[in-house]
Amino acid sequence: MTYRAPVKDMLFDIRHLAGIDQIARIPGFEEAGFDTAQAVLEECARFNEEVVAPLNWTGDQQPSRLRGGEVLTTPGFREAYRQYAEGGWQGLQHPTEFGGQGLPKTIGAACGEMLNSANLSFALCPLLTDGAIEALLTAGSDELKATYLHRLVSGEWTGTMNLTEPQAGSDLALVRTRAEPRPDGAYRIFGTKIYITYGEHDMADNIVHLVLARVQGAPEGVKGISLFVVPKFMVDKDGSLGARNDVHCVSIEHKLGIKASPTAVLQYGDKGGAVGYLVGQENRGLEYMFIMMNAARYAVGVQGIAVAERAYQKAVAYARERVQSRPVDGSLAGSAPIIHHPDVKRMLMTMRAYTEGCRAMAAVAAAAYDAAHHHPDGEVRKQNQAFYEFMVPLVKGYSTEMSLEVTSLGVQVHGGMGFIEETGAAQYYRDAKILTIYEGTTAIQANDLVGRKTARDGGQTARAIAAQIEKTEGELARQGSVAAKAVHKRLAAARRAFLDVVDFVAGQTKAAPNAVFAGSVPYLMLAGNLVAGWQLARSLLAAEQLAGQGEDLDFMKAKVATARFYADHILAKAPGIRDSIVEGADSVTAMALEAF
Amino acid sequence: MTYRAPVKDMLFDIRHLAGIDQIARIPGFEEAGFDTAQAVLEECARFNEEVVAPLNWTGDQQPSRLRGGEVLTTPGFREAYRQYAEGGWQGLQHPTEFGGQGLPKTIGAACGEMLNSANLSFALCPLLTDGAIEALLTAGSDELKATYLHRLVSGEWTGTMNLTEPQAGSDLALVRTRAEPRPDGAYRIFGTKIYITYGEHDMADNIVHLVLARVQGAPEGVKGISLFVVPKFMVDKDGSLGARNDVHCVSIEHKLGIKASPTAVLQYGDKGGAVGYLVGQENRGLEYMFIMMNAARYAVGVQGIAVAERAYQKAVAYARERVQSRPVDGSLAGSAPIIHHPDVKRMLMTMRAYTEGCRAMAAVAAAAYDAAHHHPDGEVRKQNQAFYEFMVPLVKGYSTEMSLEVTSLGVQVHGGMGFIEETGAAQYYRDAKILTIYEGTTAIQANDLVGRKTARDGGQTARAIAAQIEKTEGELARQGSVAAKAVHKRLAAARRAFLDVVDFVAGQTKAAPNAVFAGSVPYLMLAGNLVAGWQLARSLLAAEQLAGQGEDLDFMKAKVATARFYADHILAKAPGIRDSIVEGADSVTAMALEAF
Repeated sequence: MTYRAPVKDMLFDIRHLAGIDQIARIPGFEEAGFDTAQAVLEECARFNEEVVAPLNWTGDQQPSRLRGGEVLTTPGFREAYRQYAEGGWQGLQHPTEFGGQGLPKTIGAACGEMLNSANLSFALCPLLTDGAIEALLTAGSDELKATYLHRLVSGEWTGTMNLTEPQAGSDLALVRTRAEPRPDGAYRIFGTKIYITYGEHDMADNIVHLVLARVQGAPEGVKGISLFVVPKFMVDKDGSLGARNDVHCVSIEHKLGIKASPTAVLQYGDKGGAVGYLVGQENRGLEYMFIMMNAARYAVGVQGIAVAERAYQKAVAYARERVQSRPVDGSLAGSAPIIHHPDVKRMLMTMRAYTEGCRAMAAVAAAAYDAAHHHPDGEVRKQNQAFYEFMVPLVKGYSTEMSLEVTSLGVQVHGGMGFIEETGAAQYYRDAKILTIYEGTTAIQANDLVGRKTARDGGQTARAIAAQIEKTEGELARQGSVAAKAVHKRLAAARRAFLDVVDFVAGQTKAAPNAVFAGSVPYLMLAGNLVAGWQLARSLLAAEQLAGQGEDLDFMKAKVATARFYADHILAKAPGIRDSIVEGADSVTAMALEAF
Repeated sequence: MTYRAPVKDMLFDIRHLAGIDQIARIPGFEEAGFDTAQAVLEECARFNEEVVAPLNWTGDQQPSRLRGGEVLTTPGFREAYRQYAEGGWQGLQHPTEFGGQGLPKTIGAACGEMLNSANLSFALCPLLTDGAIEALLTAGSDELKATYLHRLVSGEWTGTMNLTEPQAGSDLALVRTRAEPRPDGAYRIFGTKIYITYGEHDMADNIVHLVLARVQGAPEGVKGISLFVVPKFMVDKDGSLGARNDVHCVSIEHKLGIKASPTAVLQYGDKGGAVGYLVGQENRGLEYMFIMMNAARYAVGVQGIAVAERAYQKAVAYARERVQSRPVDGSLAGSAPIIHHPDVKRMLMTMRAYTEGCRAMAAVAAAAYDAAHHHPDGEVRKQNQAFYEFMVPLVKGYSTEMSLEVTSLGVQVHGGMGFIEETGAAQYYRDAKILTIYEGTTAIQANDLVGRKTARDGGQTARAIAAQIEKTEGELARQGSVAAKAVHKRLAAARRAFLDVVDFVAGQTKAAPNAVFAGSVPYLMLAGNLVAGWQLARSLLAAEQLAGQGEDLDFMKAKVATARFYADHILAKAPGIRDSIVEGADSVTAMALEAF
């Protein structure tokens, strides 16, 4: 087996960090307690381990191909996708009203991690469909909902997000795709969209494109962008498929990684205009797109965790089997499996600690999402919404950046074998590199963290999180174990470093924007590092208490060891990052542009 | 032009940091002053920019191929190699006695960087030939020297290093290739060697394999390994090529990067035994191989600098031309080239500072090599040898690890375009990943730094280097500029962190080897970080003084800005690394092996 889902670790987080029992008290989630989580995760693990994971390497070797405007996906993908849809996995988190299972994100996110560990390329198709569903749920008319949502939630049809154009990447103000109103209330869409994930494929009967475009006469910039639904095949009143719409795939990209996922250039309107339907109101497209984006950004963060987990598992397996050199402490007379060597342990612990830390952070963020959307108390919803929104750039930015380091270490553990493509470790390294780029680069996440999430409320949410962390520090002090003390020291130092940076950001964003944005990505890294470390500190507290009750001692010991490693080796970076941000802005901007 | 050699920066280092004028006072190097350096570097730049660099992308797209036991290299490589050999570039640093130019390594290393920036895959062939030349110069008999050296130095023939076998990677004790003595004094070689760079190719008339093997009856382990010369074609008394030897390429690897460089599996002795000639004495093979390895390790470090430089240049070019979003400070009304954005500047400065820092470190190490090998004063030779040997794992380990970060940032600057293979940024990211693996992984470099370079002399060399750094701190204090003060602060903190770790390593390697080796790679990173930062601090001192004399103000300002950025953003990591090493060893080794 090439992948074994870390169900036990996920359930630990869901129970002890995310608090699934609290979530199950929210009206509508009464069935979504720990037992449900366990049952769903175990079934999900089976499906992904057996059906999806074996196609990962195949996808790298036999990527999607374009033949006469049609994309043929990797052999096996169609059948696996059919099983995915039939298993009801697409609808896991979506409303029962449209055929979904209405489970909390806290459970759904764990399932998403499994699918992505199994196969990052395959998982992108459902990931984009989720985004399309979110946008339609929030802003779609009843008619659009009736026409599209059931089919998307069932997985019969898939969704896409069409933002990017050759001149408009991070800067959506530059979008030029245009929409001309038709007399019947629909629009004709003209333009070229690039980097459209699963923009064309053969796994589903229809593709529902969500497209940013400008209605004729709309204002310049982002305030003139509207959102449209453009189906690949027109949908008749009775729901059956009609004529082919005027949107066509003209090429797919030759990429560094996620090669099985077709990245399409889509041409709209070469034959008179693609028929599109306005979502919500004109000129509010960016706002709706952000709904999709926020769902997708969280999901891409989970992709980072997922590929890190798989790289870790592969590295551990190799380190157990590869025999090379004697242990430095002379504990074995002959050559030993390399997992005995301290530096290999250090690499594996680094991989593990990052992965578990980000998983814990994502689980807690998911729980906040569930409370923010479903809790009966408005104040609770509001607090959780603020927390969740603060977490999105961290989950996206930090988890994906860490996945670059983890997948690189995964190759490194394999030595020369890692560089040979057939080994498979290099695929994770190549695949992961897109994660810090799409759905907003790390810098875009950092801008969001600085601007909308920190400066806008004067650092209030950030300081509230720091106050929660301080409470955890108090619990660590009371716990008093050697590990708790070690973690306490690093957590407190990292929190103080974070607070200094929050003061700097909240105080200087208007006065000295260049200085603040010069440190925006380091701020994101510091915040992500801290929050992941905090969650591992909480997991240490829970694990020591459970171990004290005699529960699953080996597992709890490993939890404690991982938390401590994270604190000593990763959280320990935080004060240095603080110094770079608060004292180092000048040196980022000092160089004359011509001198580069 | 895809690459422009940074001749000016190299000459700055060669003059102001490496002290070429001092080297030119060493007997034999009288002609090798600054003017020679300048003339050679300028000629070298022209050749690499025009002939070698354009073949880099071709090599990635049309890698070496195996056809019936013969390797066909990338179209254009044969002709470029012919020009390389005819230009005398292979012999640059080798003795005039064998047809070389006898120039110091201080000049040769800069030329090596250019060749590697131009084309990492192409450059590997000469790199391995250099290693073979070093080994024969040191340990070869007069007959072997007479037969092989002229042809290797001229580039007519190329060399290889044959160490690795499927079961013997980092652990050469496991080598099983065997050598049977023949009555005529030669040996018959039998075995399989893997990962042999340019083990077979069509660019030269003969290939001279240097092969580790065990003579029948030799002791177990590394003490029973001997080194042999095994030519692809036998060489007749008159120097003409004779029969094909019994060494054959059975496959070449499908790799993540450096695809144009053929990585061969070589089979020795399938047809009765490959004829080999003992180099030096039986059972001293490892010692001789280390001569090659040390030359190759330094050269691989230079590869890291080289690929980082090229990635930087590509990223800068893209950042100047890609227009996206308004500047955060509102300094431009419309969208601006992304080089205006602070985070893009931060990424470019990070790339630049790492690259210049490692280049400066490598230049100073090369100067020490020259003094260690050629200075008339024995004490000077000894001190320089100790310094150089300490530098080798730093140049190799730190420069290659930084190249992973730099090439990753290079992709990141390109955004979505970076993930598209045709852009070319991804090639550097893929190519670089081998650098932390071959010629000894980073962990192997770190073992060398801990064991042979630090613990063996009780930390004496390390502390002597720290004392030199402290002198530079004094000069920074006297200089007194804002930048000098900022750098002073970080340099002093990093040096103190380093000294703490040196005490830990020197004191604990015997008593607590697991604890020390758990921190061996972080120690290497800290030491490399410090030494590169120190050299940039020296370059700041020189640049401010030269600027004071009115020399080349823009260039000197950029030097100062780069040094300060390095101090604020890279050196600032040092204290955190110290903490992880000195206080974090337990958490590396705490996890039970079964729990991974």
